[in-house]
Amino acid sequence: MKPAVIAMPGNEQLADELAAVLSLERAAATVRRFPDGESHVRIEAPVAGRAAVIVCTLDRPDDKLVPLLLLAAAARESGASSVGLVAPYLPYMRQDRQFHPGETISAQHVGSWISRYVDWLVSVDPHLHRIADLSQVYSVPSSVVHAAGSVATWVKANVPNPLLIGPDEESAQWVGDVAQRAGAPFAVLTKTRHGDRDVKVSVPEVERWRSHTPVLVDDIVSTARTMIETVSHLRRAGLAAPVCMAVHAVFAQTAFEDLLAAGAADVVSCDTIRHASNRISLTAPVADAVRTRLR
Amino acid sequence: MKPAVIAMPGNEQLADELAAVLSLERAAATVRRFPDGESHVRIEAPVAGRAAVIVCTLDRPDDKLVPLLLLAAAARESGASSVGLVAPYLPYMRQDRQFHPGETISAQHVGSWISRYVDWLVSVDPHLHRIADLSQVYSVPSSVVHAAGSVATWVKANVPNPLLIGPDEESAQWVGDVAQRAGAPFAVLTKTRHGDRDVKVSVPEVERWRSHTPVLVDDIVSTARTMIETVSHLRRAGLAAPVCMAVHAVFAQTAFEDLLAAGAADVVSCDTIRHASNRISLTAPVADAVRTRLR
Repeated sequence: MKPAVIAMPGNEQLADELAAVLSLERAAATVRRFPDGESHVRIEAPVAGRAAVIVCTLDRPDDKLVPLLLLAAAARESGASSVGLVAPYLPYMRQDRQFHPGETISAQHVGSWISRYVDWLVSVDPHLHRIADLSQVYSVPSSVVHAAGSVATWVKANVPNPLLIGPDEESAQWVGDVAQRAGAPFAVLTKTRHGDRDVKVSVPEVERWRSHTPVLVDDIVSTARTMIETVSHLRRAGLAAPVCMAVHAVFAQTAFEDLLAAGAADVVSCDTIRHASNRISLTAPVADAVRTRLR
Repeated sequence: MKPAVIAMPGNEQLADELAAVLSLERAAATVRRFPDGESHVRIEAPVAGRAAVIVCTLDRPDDKLVPLLLLAAAARESGASSVGLVAPYLPYMRQDRQFHPGETISAQHVGSWISRYVDWLVSVDPHLHRIADLSQVYSVPSSVVHAAGSVATWVKANVPNPLLIGPDEESAQWVGDVAQRAGAPFAVLTKTRHGDRDVKVSVPEVERWRSHTPVLVDDIVSTARTMIETVSHLRRAGLAAPVCMAVHAVFAQTAFEDLLAAGAADVVSCDTIRHASNRISLTAPVADAVRTRLR
């Protein structure tokens, strides 16, 4: 029997695309809230004896996690032979150590909750910093899809004479990889963070790049403070209006509008989180990873 | 060392009252959301070697459960000798069986998540129907506080010649108990439910009670459809405007306003969920239960 693909609300497009690419069957499910605010989930299609694949990206995760875990439980209790999760954006990966006394390493807890309910996981470029590998927080097998190739292809096709700019030293390897694939130079910012929203940045030897189009790339863009600050810095230094790129378009509150208002030439993202800036589809590499997991 | 009482946001009043009644120490904690929508929790006071008591009522539970579980983890990892939870309203207790194929028994899952993070639990009149005892869903020790005595005391002091009316046969025992304590007669509705919001009700021999003040009581009032329908039924039958009472004032959307508009003389609730209708404090019996748990 064909594996069944189940979409959490808002994830129907990727579920449809995965079903089409991999010849899987879309299975209907109800995920709604009762008037009292509790989630009600129900698998509406027969999944007994079949592999189930739940698609649920996990930006703004808190009120998605409860129905997701319940839906995974419902799939298993309905007899699914396995339950997999495609979560293009994986949350809580930045809470990867105790920064202050009295904190907990949230990534570990959220990873354990999800690992209890699913048999495998596919995600896109999770924020791996102090946690070097997903297996440190997810006890189930996982596949990581890398967006660098798709990002590089878009840059090569759309940006003349690009200079790729990464937000910090941590990003140097990833940005360097994108730059190499795009046949472009790259730089990383000198960056000082004073809080969630207060960041000072500069590009080393910024004047060298006046004939290039700056392309700011980051894995997660949330408040966009770093990018906004960088756009201003580059414009002041006389560079062209930069293209701003994110793998994961979180865009908190008015961040997207603020970034455009700051003078970005364009804001472009991969489609791991549905957003107006989505321009790069990762369906093909995600489908490859799911195919491997279903073997 | 004194046990530490920690309030989740919105639970400060009960935490303060418990600290005062039981001579415990209020311990500060941060529970906030990062701009990206993830919860950030931090225990701000030393809890090492002390019993920690977290106060968090759990109406509209989905986006409260994640920070609650993380806060309980942070307390334990900060060295608390035990972590208890005071949750005056316990969610998901009505999802106590598989009503349709493809559903899961949510109460079991939510119970297991909380049980993994706390050592004991105090709640007020959880909705126990098909689940007869909290120990069937919570693997940790729990104490149940009964509101019947406090409700009866309020009725006796505030309602002349009351007739207590329960919503259904399930409630007969509880309403009978309240009625006996208040020295009043009681009846239960004949009730047919056609969906979340479509309920038909009637009071048996309604004309007998024209000289009484009807007092509608229920454990959880969410959409209030049953109460609104009953208020209309009683007014049509020529009875006095009824007093409407809830242990747990969930009041979804405009339910509270709708109930007043339907002709309720007053809407009164216990303080398990903060609401404009709160009139009956359960701090004293909750404190008694916490005291026992801390022994």
